[in-house]
Amino acid sequence: MTAVNQSKKATPPPPLAEGGLRIVALGGIGEVGRNMTVFEHAGRLLIVDCGVLFPEDDQPGVDLILPDFRAIEDRLDDIEALVLTHGHEDHIGAVPFLLKQRPDLPVIGSRFTLALLAAKCREHRQTPTLIEVAEGQHSSHGPFDCEFFAVNHSIPDALAVAIRTSAGLVLHTGDIKLDQLPLDGRLTDLAGFSRLGDEGVDLFLVDSTNAEVPGFVVPEREIGPVLDGVIRKASQRVIVACFASHVHRVQQVLDVAVEHGRRVALVGRSMVRNMGIAADLGLLHVPEGLFVDLDVAMQLPSDQVLFVSTGSQGEPLSALSRMARGEHRQISIEPGDTVVLASSLIPGNENAVFGVVNGLVRLGAQVVHQGNAKVHVSGHAPAGELLFLYNSVRPSNVMPVHGEWRHLRANAALAVRTGVAEDRVVIAEDGVVVDLVDGKAQISGRVEVGHVYVDGLSVGDVGESTLSDRLVLGEGGFISISVAVQSSTGRAVSPPTVSGRGFSDDPKALDQAVALVEMELSRTEAEGITDPHRIAQAIRRVVGRWVADTYRRRPMIVPTVIPV
Amino acid sequence: MTAVNQSKKATPPPPLAEGGLRIVALGGIGEVGRNMTVFEHAGRLLIVDCGVLFPEDDQPGVDLILPDFRAIEDRLDDIEALVLTHGHEDHIGAVPFLLKQRPDLPVIGSRFTLALLAAKCREHRQTPTLIEVAEGQHSSHGPFDCEFFAVNHSIPDALAVAIRTSAGLVLHTGDIKLDQLPLDGRLTDLAGFSRLGDEGVDLFLVDSTNAEVPGFVVPEREIGPVLDGVIRKASQRVIVACFASHVHRVQQVLDVAVEHGRRVALVGRSMVRNMGIAADLGLLHVPEGLFVDLDVAMQLPSDQVLFVSTGSQGEPLSALSRMARGEHRQISIEPGDTVVLASSLIPGNENAVFGVVNGLVRLGAQVVHQGNAKVHVSGHAPAGELLFLYNSVRPSNVMPVHGEWRHLRANAALAVRTGVAEDRVVIAEDGVVVDLVDGKAQISGRVEVGHVYVDGLSVGDVGESTLSDRLVLGEGGFISISVAVQSSTGRAVSPPTVSGRGFSDDPKALDQAVALVEMELSRTEAEGITDPHRIAQAIRRVVGRWVADTYRRRPMIVPTVIPV
Repeated sequence: MTAVNQSKKATPPPPLAEGGLRIVALGGIGEVGRNMTVFEHAGRLLIVDCGVLFPEDDQPGVDLILPDFRAIEDRLDDIEALVLTHGHEDHIGAVPFLLKQRPDLPVIGSRFTLALLAAKCREHRQTPTLIEVAEGQHSSHGPFDCEFFAVNHSIPDALAVAIRTSAGLVLHTGDIKLDQLPLDGRLTDLAGFSRLGDEGVDLFLVDSTNAEVPGFVVPEREIGPVLDGVIRKASQRVIVACFASHVHRVQQVLDVAVEHGRRVALVGRSMVRNMGIAADLGLLHVPEGLFVDLDVAMQLPSDQVLFVSTGSQGEPLSALSRMARGEHRQISIEPGDTVVLASSLIPGNENAVFGVVNGLVRLGAQVVHQGNAKVHVSGHAPAGELLFLYNSVRPSNVMPVHGEWRHLRANAALAVRTGVAEDRVVIAEDGVVVDLVDGKAQISGRVEVGHVYVDGLSVGDVGESTLSDRLVLGEGGFISISVAVQSSTGRAVSPPTVSGRGFSDDPKALDQAVALVEMELSRTEAEGITDPHRIAQAIRRVVGRWVADTYRRRPMIVPTVIPV
Repeated sequence: MTAVNQSKKATPPPPLAEGGLRIVALGGIGEVGRNMTVFEHAGRLLIVDCGVLFPEDDQPGVDLILPDFRAIEDRLDDIEALVLTHGHEDHIGAVPFLLKQRPDLPVIGSRFTLALLAAKCREHRQTPTLIEVAEGQHSSHGPFDCEFFAVNHSIPDALAVAIRTSAGLVLHTGDIKLDQLPLDGRLTDLAGFSRLGDEGVDLFLVDSTNAEVPGFVVPEREIGPVLDGVIRKASQRVIVACFASHVHRVQQVLDVAVEHGRRVALVGRSMVRNMGIAADLGLLHVPEGLFVDLDVAMQLPSDQVLFVSTGSQGEPLSALSRMARGEHRQISIEPGDTVVLASSLIPGNENAVFGVVNGLVRLGAQVVHQGNAKVHVSGHAPAGELLFLYNSVRPSNVMPVHGEWRHLRANAALAVRTGVAEDRVVIAEDGVVVDLVDGKAQISGRVEVGHVYVDGLSVGDVGESTLSDRLVLGEGGFISISVAVQSSTGRAVSPPTVSGRGFSDDPKALDQAVALVEMELSRTEAEGITDPHRIAQAIRRVVGRWVADTYRRRPMIVPTVIPV
């Protein structure tokens, strides 16, 4: 298999060969999240997905990470359409930011996907041009002909998209798994994929998320009986936390609640909103009178109520976290309550989630989670299912998508084992340009793709330099030294003000530093130094050395010299 | 089972009943790490273990967390001895900090445990009083008679300790598992525990770490053949990362290296030090000439060398992390190299570890880890093994130790299932005082136990207030505003200096704020405000409001007003 050389420097590709198709991911390859793939053919562009990535520890204070639009910002008018495979945040979350640059961009997707997008766009006061499609349908956008296929995932109404151009036939799975007994009967259309395989798939972009995991995912419907067993034994209140878009998971919770005579209150803004949309579209079946408001639920006997809540990832502001800390305004956990985390544990969230579990357990709740009961199944095809995909599609070229390097390599290895030639499996992380020309996919160059951070109301003004300062400040705090000096002589006109934040709880911690700064100011004055910048540098040096020697810490040293 | 009420406030216990035994954990219960349990009888104290805890995300910049010694600081002279169960950092890491307060404290432990402690104390320039014991031996310390039992764990030479006083017989497992085919043939002494059970164990303190995990741990020795399979297939260099104290794991790596004609270089200071100690004590068997220096190893053909390295938890400064980033001075990863992470994945380290894995995979290495091969087994007894312990010991009272709340509850439930009366299972998190009187263990109060942070050279001056500032600074950076004002009039004598760090990459981000501060200074001057503190407050208010409205961010606002 081929992969980019290890440098991340941009190496602009040559012009695309006549009749060729160019593919570049602006997010989602080499990472899990912010999926966005740009297809170029005959001078026109088609985009598949436009999602967000959630920040990690080394990106503190950041709210969201967007795909890097720079590679297309000069070509916004060339974009024919944006195709969305499904409604998860890592596939639709960045759409409002793209629409800001191109408000009239047609957005193509299934009914549920577009309903979720519309709700999101309303919050951004946008009314995008939405074109609804369903499995089995085609849509045409300039030189791109799209055909849509049902796929099964952890959200209803997901689609794979086949893109036909004169360069060949490309199939993009989106997020996919092969549940053979799906709750809604809507199977991943393996038969359709096989027909495409008969026709000849030139390039297959395949979800890599679970490629390292052997075997098959247990059907979603097997969770119902487990939930039933848990809730049957519960003599008090039951709280089930899961993802707010996992309609089939919630459906099974509702079914069990009905079975045991419990009424249901939804907790959490996104849970209320999404289940409302799902019910309106007929994707969630809610018996008359099952749902009650939280206030009403609080009045019901504890064995007649069930809460479906957000917060399954330990988000500190979520309802579930507040319950675990004993800080929820309405719901206080009592010994004997049952809490079910019917959700995955996203890597990086372990401490937060176990913190919530420990808080709940400490308050006396019984907590059921995927570590002690089968209350979650993944939404992504593991190795066994990926082999079915490769053998159905029989692609000429393969490009693993959606995953970190370990996932991409594992997926590539599976493709090779099904008979795809090694040199036709292209690992192309974000920014790597792949050209499909004469039926062969090859890396042709690399465009720059960075992290674009959303922090509060602004996009892009927080970058690596600000994050690096935050990391330093977060580890060691800062010591500020302010002093006013006579501009003509450089003489200090008052004692220096030295204070620290995030440095020490000891109010005397910096007392020694004041004397050191005063000595240094005498020295600079004696040497005739009047330039505030040079005085500040001298102060930084002497305080920095003192703190390193005395404390072996590395706070940021922030001198301010005011000439008066 | 009984547990403390949910408040963490101190409620001093009544004086200990005559002839009773008092137990209080100053660390290690309700958390995984900094294990330290204090036993009091007849006015004298015995301490079991004195370890450190490693900080989490909400404790930035902290190096280590110590047990809280406040409860014993007035009674240092009452301490008869410190017993160490084994040599892991979470059991011995805080000993130098306790010795600083009581340098002559006798420290009791097995040969390997004391050798590791001695090495640690040398770094602190301490020469403690060490008393070596072995399984089957007794040692007497004031009113406490200790008897030691062999236990199997992920480090050699671990001990459980039975403590006899006139109050009864207490058995403390330390960290324990029940490998029935241990590599060194040193079984956990279940027969000895059964004899204690016959005698009558009044209180059993039991390792809870794996109580949530069903079943049994696979024998350590089954890892050898897996490593053999991996290394047999490797045609280039092999790097195995594991914990630097896991002598039996390293032994198996060495055995496989010999089998395949590879010489071995140890990488990482603690790996070199600990394996040196283990070899000296005859715990690690190293064939003559197997070990080579790193420089020599770099000259060997790639299929004749194997590196045993630290860094299995993704520590950013470790050799393995540097290799993954392509920054190691000597070892650069080549496509086709094999890296084995023969280690657990400690919760909270997932992102760091997978970051290392992705870096290595990206460079072309094949990475084997516990997610894709059986290259690690746990050192702690899961539920199945704990049942064996309870049924051998048949304790009257049980106190789960070593674990978060979820582990403690699960362990308590196991005790109850083996027939321990519910009201004789005491969950007592750090600081909760348990009295064993007339054969019954009961909670009698609570002492205050906080986190004691080591940051650089200082202990204890970094507390919750400093950490809270660091968290704010780490999320949003700060904006500092410095201005010199005439002390008589409050008039600014120069334009204010406004600057931010960790706030924005945009150099113009704060331009508007300067004008706002100037306006505010005119206002305070006009109102005749000359108090620097009040002027600073006014500046903080106006800048804080502006930044929240404009950016929806929460940097720390740091005004300094210098009267001249």
